[in-house]
Amino acid sequence: MEGVRIFCPATIANISCGFDVLGVALDSVGDEMTLRKTDTPGIRITKIIGQEIPLETEQNVAGVAALALLGECDFSGGIEIEIEKKIKPGSGIGSSAASAAGAAFGLNLLLGNPFNRHQLVRFAMQGEKLASGVAHADNVAPALLGGFTLVRSYDPLDVIKLNTPEQLYATIIHPQIEVKTADSRKILKTGISLKDGIRQWGNVGGLIAGLYTEDYDLISRSLEDHIVEPIRSMLIPGYDDLKGAAVKAGALGVGISGSGPSVFALSKGSAKAREVADAFRSAYSVVGVPFEIHVSKINQEGIKVLEQW
Amino acid sequence: MEGVRIFCPATIANISCGFDVLGVALDSVGDEMTLRKTDTPGIRITKIIGQEIPLETEQNVAGVAALALLGECDFSGGIEIEIEKKIKPGSGIGSSAASAAGAAFGLNLLLGNPFNRHQLVRFAMQGEKLASGVAHADNVAPALLGGFTLVRSYDPLDVIKLNTPEQLYATIIHPQIEVKTADSRKILKTGISLKDGIRQWGNVGGLIAGLYTEDYDLISRSLEDHIVEPIRSMLIPGYDDLKGAAVKAGALGVGISGSGPSVFALSKGSAKAREVADAFRSAYSVVGVPFEIHVSKINQEGIKVLEQW
Repeated sequence: MEGVRIFCPATIANISCGFDVLGVALDSVGDEMTLRKTDTPGIRITKIIGQEIPLETEQNVAGVAALALLGECDFSGGIEIEIEKKIKPGSGIGSSAASAAGAAFGLNLLLGNPFNRHQLVRFAMQGEKLASGVAHADNVAPALLGGFTLVRSYDPLDVIKLNTPEQLYATIIHPQIEVKTADSRKILKTGISLKDGIRQWGNVGGLIAGLYTEDYDLISRSLEDHIVEPIRSMLIPGYDDLKGAAVKAGALGVGISGSGPSVFALSKGSAKAREVADAFRSAYSVVGVPFEIHVSKINQEGIKVLEQW
Repeated sequence: MEGVRIFCPATIANISCGFDVLGVALDSVGDEMTLRKTDTPGIRITKIIGQEIPLETEQNVAGVAALALLGECDFSGGIEIEIEKKIKPGSGIGSSAASAAGAAFGLNLLLGNPFNRHQLVRFAMQGEKLASGVAHADNVAPALLGGFTLVRSYDPLDVIKLNTPEQLYATIIHPQIEVKTADSRKILKTGISLKDGIRQWGNVGGLIAGLYTEDYDLISRSLEDHIVEPIRSMLIPGYDDLKGAAVKAGALGVGISGSGPSVFALSKGSAKAREVADAFRSAYSVVGVPFEIHVSKINQEGIKVLEQW
């Protein structure tokens, strides 16, 4: 194989009760990347469409992820990477993760698949480290594996792909304000009450049981977060109104995507997800902050090959 | 139906990472109860074999659970209850829960099943309230429903029966020392670090995913508790030796049953569970505290009817 064009999905991390452990991949929101072999050794980012992002390999999340993988392979040739960014950096739906995961996935494919998708997570995490200072896996894992993923542990790294019911759809609203990941992490308390902890892991248990039994009611009841949402939602103007409107429209649950500012809702069925989009739109039109809305089925497979040659 | 004899299983609550939310029922350890209709109105505990426990209805966990159920039914007759206690009170494997759940279950059966097993949980919880001051559900839920159960929430009460792999066995060692539930709760910190909380709900997620996919390896990796075990294990002489020996013998995981002093191990297959029993026995023989050991398959159905007339 000489080249490949892939779709790299946007992702929602910090799914309500699953702060830092649960993420999910989207189907109709994502970047496109093209990777091709060249005769000039090394990794080069040749083009980025849609965003102002550094082209230098070591300063680019895709470059860093590719270098991490290459460091464990025997390959003396060269790779060119083009990225068409459709996910806005800073939106909270895994923009850097899509690029990092895509680079690891595409390079792996060109090298004849020395690694499986699970094994690619740790290379993609190196891109996340460049982007946010922390080698977190909660966006790159769903980007690579698809569906809902659980990062059970970092030491050792243990990522589990969970069952994902077919009728799950996400509605995402991206208020065009800047919330820095570092800031939104800083405002979290380093301690929580045991009582809130118990509620949180009860809900994580309920959510995962609901995903396996495809019990949308249980999923809905479990989409609660008593720890992070009350704090981080203060950084998102109109959050309570958004949540109230989506719940009223019949969403299964609502939460902050990643570290914000995007807000997600999960719904059963595409019609309901579109109604929730309407509810988001009505509720946010009065806030005075520009916004974008996406509706997407949950992506079951993760990164997809669009073309290869 | 005039009378019923039932088996009321012992249960393990606080399964490792699932503090306060996850419990499981045993198959070959439990009490027997007989309930029969009489002409004298009201609930009477007529006999308790094997333990010194109050016979007064309002002072007995079975009596209190039965009264709670009766309060929501039209029944003007009388019920006599006999209890053959085989689970030692204070052992940490749900002695009071077995009696409370058994009373609710047996009475419900005699009344023609006005409630389903899920609905009986809240009556049985009233018995737990008498026993420990807290109307907790983490033992009565598995006693009634069988298998692994999750108490997702108390307000509103939301109990979920989880999938339970067929090859799961428990080995339990009961050191004959007294650990009062109230004391073992008092030594817990009321606050935990967010970091430990995240590890805990990551493990709860992994454990529940492992139960549904019947992935014994994942179950094993997830049977961790960084919050309660480090503190409560100090109340159990020789805990670390027990745990080390069981893990070395091939147990999937080891933890404190309920609030102790019993220690449980989960294993794949009965042969392994018996090897773990041997390991417990060898490790504890040098501690100098008398002990009992049980090996049991996980009970899939909860309370069982032995006889009815």
